[in-house]
Amino acid sequence: MRLPIIDHGLFPRSHRPPLPSEFLSQLKTQFGPRFSQGDSVRLQHGRDESVHPEMLPDGVVFAQSTEEVAWVVRHCNQYRVPLIPFGVGSSVEGHVLAPHGGLSLDLSGMNQVLAVHPEDLDATVQAGVTRLQLNRELKGTGFFFPIDPGADATLGGMASTRASGTNAVRYGTMRENVLAATVVTPTGEIVKTGSRARKSSAGYDLTRLFVGAEGTLGVITELTLRLHPVPEAMSAAVCAFPDVDSAVQTVIQTIQMGIPVARIELLDSFTLQAVNRHSHTELPEAPTLFFEFHGSEASVEEQAQLTQELASGNGGQGFQWATRPEDRSRLWEARHQAYFACLQMKPGGKVFPTDVCVPISRLAECIHATNQDIAQVSIPIALFGHVGDGNFHLVVLVDTQNPKDVAEAQWINERVVERAIAMEGTCTGEHGVGMGKRKFLEREHGAPAVALMRQLKACLDPANILNPGKIIPD
Amino acid sequence: MRLPIIDHGLFPRSHRPPLPSEFLSQLKTQFGPRFSQGDSVRLQHGRDESVHPEMLPDGVVFAQSTEEVAWVVRHCNQYRVPLIPFGVGSSVEGHVLAPHGGLSLDLSGMNQVLAVHPEDLDATVQAGVTRLQLNRELKGTGFFFPIDPGADATLGGMASTRASGTNAVRYGTMRENVLAATVVTPTGEIVKTGSRARKSSAGYDLTRLFVGAEGTLGVITELTLRLHPVPEAMSAAVCAFPDVDSAVQTVIQTIQMGIPVARIELLDSFTLQAVNRHSHTELPEAPTLFFEFHGSEASVEEQAQLTQELASGNGGQGFQWATRPEDRSRLWEARHQAYFACLQMKPGGKVFPTDVCVPISRLAECIHATNQDIAQVSIPIALFGHVGDGNFHLVVLVDTQNPKDVAEAQWINERVVERAIAMEGTCTGEHGVGMGKRKFLEREHGAPAVALMRQLKACLDPANILNPGKIIPD
Repeated sequence: MRLPIIDHGLFPRSHRPPLPSEFLSQLKTQFGPRFSQGDSVRLQHGRDESVHPEMLPDGVVFAQSTEEVAWVVRHCNQYRVPLIPFGVGSSVEGHVLAPHGGLSLDLSGMNQVLAVHPEDLDATVQAGVTRLQLNRELKGTGFFFPIDPGADATLGGMASTRASGTNAVRYGTMRENVLAATVVTPTGEIVKTGSRARKSSAGYDLTRLFVGAEGTLGVITELTLRLHPVPEAMSAAVCAFPDVDSAVQTVIQTIQMGIPVARIELLDSFTLQAVNRHSHTELPEAPTLFFEFHGSEASVEEQAQLTQELASGNGGQGFQWATRPEDRSRLWEARHQAYFACLQMKPGGKVFPTDVCVPISRLAECIHATNQDIAQVSIPIALFGHVGDGNFHLVVLVDTQNPKDVAEAQWINERVVERAIAMEGTCTGEHGVGMGKRKFLEREHGAPAVALMRQLKACLDPANILNPGKIIPD
Repeated sequence: MRLPIIDHGLFPRSHRPPLPSEFLSQLKTQFGPRFSQGDSVRLQHGRDESVHPEMLPDGVVFAQSTEEVAWVVRHCNQYRVPLIPFGVGSSVEGHVLAPHGGLSLDLSGMNQVLAVHPEDLDATVQAGVTRLQLNRELKGTGFFFPIDPGADATLGGMASTRASGTNAVRYGTMRENVLAATVVTPTGEIVKTGSRARKSSAGYDLTRLFVGAEGTLGVITELTLRLHPVPEAMSAAVCAFPDVDSAVQTVIQTIQMGIPVARIELLDSFTLQAVNRHSHTELPEAPTLFFEFHGSEASVEEQAQLTQELASGNGGQGFQWATRPEDRSRLWEARHQAYFACLQMKPGGKVFPTDVCVPISRLAECIHATNQDIAQVSIPIALFGHVGDGNFHLVVLVDTQNPKDVAEAQWINERVVERAIAMEGTCTGEHGVGMGKRKFLEREHGAPAVALMRQLKACLDPANILNPGKIIPD
């Protein structure tokens, strides 16, 4: 059995029209071996990292240039064939699935870093460049790209889901770090959405029209991104707390004091158990905060000291610092492996992630109530997240063959989303809507806002060819 | 004679239809004395701080609630009457003028701070609240709203022009500091564009669709804004340089080193002359940088020391610090009065401002070439700006009755805009497009991007009632 919560059953494959034969032969002529209808290629492009069931496209095109993307979009528009942009498939909300069939547009071959301007703190990349690739190519320049959603996603995919992650509390999300984009619109026009100026008041914010639009309004083919100076000094720290509330209070005080913390992550005691088991560490199995501080030597030391004082005031124990790169890496490795460590707590299980974000004043209350929900179900659930932004995840471990697991996961997800929305928060802080969160959109934004989104979609993509079945509720 | 460059002559008043009599009587019934057709009220709402000629609306409505705004918008839509949102009229690009006549919608009565959440670092205000009013109401909370465009503009107006100013290098622009808005769409729907979550991936970025749209896509009636902690310590500094290049090199190095400077402003020697004459100061009449540093005591001292070293390395002389509030204010007063000081250098003259922004690596070259242009004209021109962002203004002083002045101003403006665009910059860093920059939009963004903007406008406002004649070129 599949998770019913996300298997909407709205797009039975049998109802999908096949690719028109004329279009098929044009694709073969245009792309040769870079067009495929092979089962394994289609399977690889019809699934992501989520528990959403596979939904295969009818074919996959591997594009190598903006002009090729424009060709594909124009033809899909002409033949009314759905087109789904694809990076590396690390989405967790079904963004790359093909509920209506159609073509998957693989952009991973567009992986050139086109320009690095250290003097302007920006770089221009093709959409298929991954974040780790970009940072490798930036080595030695003194600059880096900070957004880190965990997976080594493509920057095009990260822009499309408005990704963020551990560093967002200091450096912002993709919303703040995309300066401009090259986008192919649903009718095949190539649009440049902005200049390299740090700021501009010259007309509508086309850049942010496409950032977070999940490929439903256009295909991002290039991005100009903000870079940040590699800090002179970095230090990491870890601190265990008697309970989640004390940890969260420390977070709130840190943010309110304006300490420019670079990372501040909460892991609950279940996550620490999983981490210890997975990484053979001996961290206290208690609610724990992981910190990272960036700045000058003096500033980093001051930030860490201030934070330590706040932590102690809230009962934090054994505040450990690490300034040497290898010690810092060791500390953060535990955090980075948390997802996989949790997954191993339920062999054969799958992860059903939640992703709410609330105003930070409600965070303690939100987590507290969520923990009461967790106590009511039998499935194992880990809680961790980017608490400096008010964003946390539940890693709900389910056996997708077990209806009770699935029902419990569904119940928890609904509860946590409803609570976050009631607290003036959001159903998704960074994962995106995809297929899984569409049903919450109206609850969060209200009917007029969703009607406006629908109007924008209908206006820009009247044939509904770009990533249909995502974001906009049916 | 009026400045021909901005007196497009495209909308002769004689061609404007009068307000339909049925609508007139509805307005009188609905708003009583809060609807006016008096000459002085219409004049006050038909001009701004720019050299654009007055273009009067046919009437002015003083709204007091979002619901009233929605009523006005719905009726304007029904009767096809242009509607121009109005705050305090501090625009410098003709945003509030009524080239097509119609109604001016005065939002200055919507001046309630609706909620302050210090614990979440946000506040919700009505659109007519000004930035100084908000900061007065925030006194004692430990938080402030940093965006400072100079004028005490309304926050609705600042959001609509994507304003920024002296603090943007550290705190961002209105683009980064608006969390959510309540907007009345051109058909009269009330839309909430976001939650109070610090970040969200839940659908299209409706907030930034309206930020910078200059009231052409909707009327912003409420805003949820990011607040920032009042820094523990602030210090200001001023330093004169042998030439503009040396000052700009100091700016570039400061930004590239990641020194989190809060303000970094360049004033050229002409501006310093004007400031000395106006404020009876005795600052060296040389290219000068004004700095402000925010942070902890230790951090502020470190920032100032690092910056002083950079300045000295570039020939900066007499680096003066000020940490006491009164000394800091005195230093910055000179900067804040620069605009009026320059205006006094040409009695009876008017200011024609330019507002380009370029990647910082091109800034020295851009200013150098601009100074060569300035040397070729006879009118006095001051240069200053927010150089940490690559944004600078020319304050071109013209006698609007003198055709030679006007022609020279026009020539300089074209030159500086073309140069900025050629350098991958923008024609307007913070003033907005309004009426004055429409002709540059396609040059900057390209035809497909402008076509997309036009498409968005036509989709959301098919009757073209909201602020017609702004942003979108004819």
